[in-house]
This record gives sequence, C-alpha cells and structure tokens, in this order.
Amino acid sequence: MPSYKLTYFNVRGYGEPARILFHLADVPFEDFRMTIGDGTWENLKAKTPFGQAPVLSVDGFEIPQSAAINRYLAKQFGYAGKTPEEQAWTDAIVDQYKDFMVSIKEVGKASAAGKSAEEVGKIIQSDLVPARDAFFVIINKILEKSKSGFLVGDGLTIADIVIVECITTLDKHQLFTASEQPKLVALREKVYAIPAIKKWVEIRPDTLN
Amino acid sequence: MPSYKLTYFNVRGYGEPARILFHLADVPFEDFRMTIGDGTWENLKAKTPFGQAPVLSVDGFEIPQSAAINRYLAKQFGYAGKTPEEQAWTDAIVDQYKDFMVSIKEVGKASAAGKSAEEVGKIIQSDLVPARDAFFVIINKILEKSKSGFLVGDGLTIADIVIVECITTLDKHQLFTASEQPKLVALREKVYAIPAIKKWVEIRPDTLN
Repeated sequence: MPSYKLTYFNVRGYGEPARILFHLADVPFEDFRMTIGDGTWENLKAKTPFGQAPVLSVDGFEIPQSAAINRYLAKQFGYAGKTPEEQAWTDAIVDQYKDFMVSIKEVGKASAAGKSAEEVGKIIQSDLVPARDAFFVIINKILEKSKSGFLVGDGLTIADIVIVECITTLDKHQLFTASEQPKLVALREKVYAIPAIKKWVEIRPDTLN
Repeated sequence: MPSYKLTYFNVRGYGEPARILFHLADVPFEDFRMTIGDGTWENLKAKTPFGQAPVLSVDGFEIPQSAAINRYLAKQFGYAGKTPEEQAWTDAIVDQYKDFMVSIKEVGKASAAGKSAEEVGKIIQSDLVPARDAFFVIINKILEKSKSGFLVGDGLTIADIVIVECITTLDKHQLFTASEQPKLVALREKVYAIPAIKKWVEIRPDTLN
C-alpha cells in the first residue's frame, strides 16, 4: 500500500471528495489540514507543483489539481466508472461542476476583496443563482434518466460524491432549497447512507465550506 | 471502428484537440462545424446533453464537455499518459489550462456584452495577462524538468496538444511573445512537427479562435 498524504485547508471544499474516497476504500492517508492565515500555506505554496492546494502525495510523488487527484484515486479504488463511456460521463459531470464553481469563486473573490455584504449579495443573485439553477437543470436531467438513482451507471462514482458535497456546501450557505430539489435530495441521502461515507460524515470536522 | 461525429463551431477552440487526436490516430470522423449565427446551434442546443458544444457522438452515444471528450479519445488512441501517475499529471495540466481559460472567457463575455475595444483591452491587461503569465510559469517549470521535451513522460499526450493549441490562439491575438518563451516555442515546434499533426495543421481551416 503506498503512503498517501493529502495537503489541503481545514475545509471540505476541493479536498473533501478525495477524503471521502479514502474512507470509502478504507485506505489510510494523512489528512494534512492547514489553517488559513497561520503561515503554513505561505511557507508551503512555492514548493507545491502549481502553487495551489489540494496536493496528493503518493509515496512522495505529488499530484496537483483536485479533479486530477479525485480521478486518480477513483480509478485506484473503483469509483471512476466501469466502462470508457461511463468514465467519460463521470468526467463530463465533474467538468460541468468545475464550470459552475467559477461562479462560486467569483463570490469568494468579492468577499476577499472586502466588498460589502450587500454587494456580495448582489453578485450571488446576479451570477451564482442563475448558474446554480442552470447546473441543477443538467443534474436533474441526468437523474431523470437514471435507473439506479446514481448519476452514472448502476453504482457510485466520484461524480456523485462531487455533486453531493457541492449541494452540502450550497445548503450550508442557504443556497439550496431542499423542497424544490427532490431528486438532488434523494441523491444526497443515497450517497450519505453508504456505511463508510455515513460514518465519516458523522465525525468529520464540521466546516462551512 | 465506431462511427464518430464531433459537433462544434467552425473554430479551433475547445474542439480542436479532439480533431487533432483523430488525425493523429488516422481515425475517420465527421467534423461537423456550425457557423455561429446561422441558426444551426440554436436548433441543436436543447438536444445536446448539457446545452453546450463540443459534443462527441460515438455510434450515437453522446459525450459532452471538451476535457471529457479529449480524455476519452486520448485513452482510446494512446495519448492519455502511460501510467496512472502520468495520466494524473496529464489531467492536472489540462485542468490548469481550464482554470486559465476562465480569464479568456471573461474577455469574450466583455466583447459579447458590447464593451468598447478600450474597455476590453483593460480587462485583457488587468486579468488575462497576469493569468497567462502565471500559467506560463507553471508550464515552463514542467518543461524545465522534462527530459523528453514533452509535458508528461517520454511522449506526446493530450496535455501537449491542449497547451500548444492554447499558445496558437494567444499568438493569433498578439498575446504570445515568442522571444520571451523559448520553451513553449520549442514545445509547439515539436508537436506541430509530428507528421500527422503537421499535415492537418497545414490544411485545417484557418480561424482566429
């Protein structure tokens, strides 16, 4: 078994799907969590491959970019899709999520730039909400056609994990209305009911993002 | 051999790496090019999986999202990286390109929204140029460590194709200074010297994007 270390901040965010994959596969890993502002990241940043976190170290071999990390682990642990076609759809859903995240990042940037709560609220309404709605239409369309209740094929893939974690984050920011999204709620319940995930979700650090 | 059809606009953009992969593998495909504004896309949009192009059809099975399409074809044709670790790095570079493309999209959005050339120029200088420079630092760092001159391992991958096409687009917009980027120029020459790619690049439609 290789020695795995995931370096990320003490939030779920872009690091959580990898953590879930480790717990799901019951594979030990070092869950190295940096606290924003304590200097750890400032010292480490220049030493990472792309100056970004998360970074996954596999016996010292470093992989940057969350989607690449998630796909790498999903392939090792059997959650990347069963056929080349399932893998392509798993990838496509994750890429669509990545496109949607651009709107979330804009809100984060506005907050970090010191814009007022009112201004940030306007950006949420003008940019994030329409992007979220368009994204939810796509995910709902996929779930409508699904026989298994999962997004791709007949079992869990990294696409389900990424989408469910995204819903959880939106929910924590009061940007998810469960009563309007029964299919997404059902997906979340299905994923969080998987014993190894359920166990981790119950004990993981409860962070806003 | 499956029947392949790539639906995209009459630009290189997000569709060109897939076209290059087909030419490289000498695999026939329908290169279906829509002209922006002639109504074809408007009719087709709602029928595509995510309301977006490109879409790859494989015997009628549709795959959306360019990176998912490129990875699918790269795997079929042998340009996705030779080991799981090479594949992860190929993915990471493509994801980093995708992050950089957000800045390019912002410029496109500003143009489409009818902003003046002066205003668009300001966005290019304040957003795109710093993002491009940061992106080039990362790609240069990878090339400095490369023994083969390719971005990943000892041969061509989809990462090289995506990066080289991105350079070509920046160059056509006078946003690439060859004399400042000898390593990127060398990569471009190396990729465009591959006979099947060279042949295609010489005859392909010459578009700005």
